[in-house]
Amino acid sequence: MTKEPVVAILGATGAVGQEFIRLIEERKFPYSKLKLLASYRSAGKKMTVNGEEYTVEEAKPESFDGVDIGLFAGGSISKELGPEAAKRGCIVIDNSSTFRMDPNVPLVVPEVNPEDIAWHKGIIANPNCSTIIMLMALKPIHDLSPIKRIIVSTYQAVSGAGKEGIDELRDETEAYLKGEEMQPKILPSKSLPKHYPIAFNLIPQIDKFVEKDYTKEEMKMVNETHKMLHDDSIAITATTVRVPVFRSHAESVYVETADELTVDAVRKAIDAFPGAQVQDNPAEMEYPMPLFTSEKYDCYVGRIRKDLYNPKAINLWVSGDQIRKGAALNALQIAEYMLAHDMIH
Amino acid sequence: MTKEPVVAILGATGAVGQEFIRLIEERKFPYSKLKLLASYRSAGKKMTVNGEEYTVEEAKPESFDGVDIGLFAGGSISKELGPEAAKRGCIVIDNSSTFRMDPNVPLVVPEVNPEDIAWHKGIIANPNCSTIIMLMALKPIHDLSPIKRIIVSTYQAVSGAGKEGIDELRDETEAYLKGEEMQPKILPSKSLPKHYPIAFNLIPQIDKFVEKDYTKEEMKMVNETHKMLHDDSIAITATTVRVPVFRSHAESVYVETADELTVDAVRKAIDAFPGAQVQDNPAEMEYPMPLFTSEKYDCYVGRIRKDLYNPKAINLWVSGDQIRKGAALNALQIAEYMLAHDMIH
Ligand SMILES: NC(=O)c1ccc[n+]([C@@H]2O[C@H](COP(=O)([O-])OP(=O)(O)OC[C@H]3O[C@@H](n4cnc5c(N)ncnc54)[C@H](OP(=O)(O)O)[C@@H]3O)[C@@H](O)[C@H]2O)c1
Ligand SMILES: NC(=O)c1ccc[n+]([C@@H]2O[C@H](COP(=O)([O-])OP(=O)(O)OC[C@H]3O[C@@H](n4cnc5c(N)ncnc54)[C@H](OP(=O)(O)O)[C@@H]3O)[C@@H](O)[C@H]2O)c1
Repeated sequence: MTKEPVVAILGATGAVGQEFIRLIEERKFPYSKLKLLASYRSAGKKMTVNGEEYTVEEAKPESFDGVDIGLFAGGSISKELGPEAAKRGCIVIDNSSTFRMDPNVPLVVPEVNPEDIAWHKGIIANPNCSTIIMLMALKPIHDLSPIKRIIVSTYQAVSGAGKEGIDELRDETEAYLKGEEMQPKILPSKSLPKHYPIAFNLIPQIDKFVEKDYTKEEMKMVNETHKMLHDDSIAITATTVRVPVFRSHAESVYVETADELTVDAVRKAIDAFPGAQVQDNPAEMEYPMPLFTSEKYDCYVGRIRKDLYNPKAINLWVSGDQIRKGAALNALQIAEYMLAHDMIH
Repeated sequence: MTKEPVVAILGATGAVGQEFIRLIEERKFPYSKLKLLASYRSAGKKMTVNGEEYTVEEAKPESFDGVDIGLFAGGSISKELGPEAAKRGCIVIDNSSTFRMDPNVPLVVPEVNPEDIAWHKGIIANPNCSTIIMLMALKPIHDLSPIKRIIVSTYQAVSGAGKEGIDELRDETEAYLKGEEMQPKILPSKSLPKHYPIAFNLIPQIDKFVEKDYTKEEMKMVNETHKMLHDDSIAITATTVRVPVFRSHAESVYVETADELTVDAVRKAIDAFPGAQVQDNPAEMEYPMPLFTSEKYDCYVGRIRKDLYNPKAINLWVSGDQIRKGAALNALQIAEYMLAHDMIH
């Protein structure tokens, strides 16, 4: 493309949308024109990007006329507006789960499967945050020896449920410490009939239950991993749990490979993988913790150790900022990749 | 025994010690005389048990003269005072890790391996809290079909680190919400050279690192399970993580058995097991959460589901009060068992 792209952020007022703005500034993402879109609720709101003031507009199909790149973080409205934007020649990079398993939509982490970007038909899906963070640790291992088995338990931050999740943890924590009653309204998921406190608690449910008593979040980790690694035979078990952490997910992962690998080889492969960093020194008590992996670009991997019983298995602990690499950063990297490879016209 | 026993609580001022007192009252545990022991720091402190006032004494070897049952929750001082008390004819039920793997000391959960109580030589060890809670869910499964493989990730409450762990989470949370700096002094473990905040954070280290980059807590879950189930061949992998929860541990467990089991059979077995309760109804969003399993006697098991890939594996989520069943309650149940079976003279 000769000129810089026209960019629209859908859901600009949300947790992921605000992170898009921060990253566009930090990474000097080029644009000739920028549109901030949200629902009617936020229309008229003023927001500043790169020192310039913008007025948030209500998102409509026509909002995407003349837009080159649509960074979507508006939730389920993607279903309606994604195809409308694509029809208008806008390349949609979507954070919702709407299109992820659509065979006509590539699901992409640029470090994992950039080759899939090429066959897009107007919409590219950003994977689930827990899947992205897990794969940032596992793809380098998969490249050493094909992964056969994954057993993962997650420790997911409340901001994964958006800005309302953040407010809920703060409000409940304050109430609890004052001895007042907590008033859960959002978690485990706003649309579900029951809500439980997350302050000083754990909720072993993220998203609704879908099949065989697994949750949708757990099945996303299975299905999206298969799609991105192009291998449906990998046996994956996930247990996804919400924890009272504001930002950055963490995951305890058991991974079995076709061949026996040394811890040293795994460490080297992860460290050489762009976007992943080994933080693993038991002698110095170094390992990833969400408080310190927050607001970072990279995913951090520690507690890397051989299984005591299965020589072909490794256990590890990964933590990464799910609003950054798990959402806005990954989507923006897809856009950067497409600009760098002249894939946006 | 004809008369009621003389009982001493060592560490009566601590998290577990105070729970001993609450449980002795609640369960109407019989005693003819009660002694409250702690370090010199708490000597002289007044405490009320069953409406009667007691003065805390500094624990010394002679404190156990004439004592029938010693409920030990004083930490590493067990090493010195355990044998001293036993020498004086006191039956020691010890919460520390000192004697757990000693071949001369039975390691007991009364619902799991009561038969081991009989061969004690004066000291009986209470297992690690995470191990107890896990086995309360797994022993009924093991009775259906021998367990071959366990992969467990824990979510452990701060009170597992004693009363100072509780204060630390509260103080740090208050500081964080006020925008002040957090001052970690206790976690992951007081005796370690570095300390990290636990408020709104996760620490993937409990106790020190011991072998092959596993922590002592992780190895306890392996070794103590082997000892109590009398089967060293079970392949166990543990990842133990501290979470910002005040009370009640939770664990995500993958368990493989010799034979294929139905979820229904597993549910029935757990519900029939004394001290365990199934709390598992995805349609009603029912599953165990630490906020609600706290201050309960039983361990709660939910998210029970077949593995999607291994027909001989089940995944589940268990939560239980680690100060109660994970420590004081289990120890008191051992004493109750011994009284009921006339094993204290
Ligand atoms: N948070 C994460 O870590 C994360 C990670 C991966 C993926 N995601 C996905 O990213 C998307 C956004 O999540 P979030 O966490 O940023 O949620 P959020 O904080 O709740 O923000 C939601 C945003 O969507 C806008 N919106 C809602 N309904 C809309 C409508 N009908 N039309 C236009 N805009 C609408 C909201 O605008 P108003 O201000 O007008 O309400 C707001 O800007 C979701 O699909 C989520 O699943 C989130
Ligand atoms: N908390 C749990 O969930 C849990 C679970 C399983 C096992 N345990 C084990 O139970 C034991 C107690 O743990 P806790 O959590 O109750 O710890 P805590 O809250 O820190 O209490 C420690 C207790 O030990 C006493 N103590 C310390 N040093 C002593 C000494 N030299 N002589 C006599 N008494 C001494 C303290 O008395 P002062 O008041 O005088 O300092 C206090 O009463 C530990 O071995 C721990 O590993 C704890």
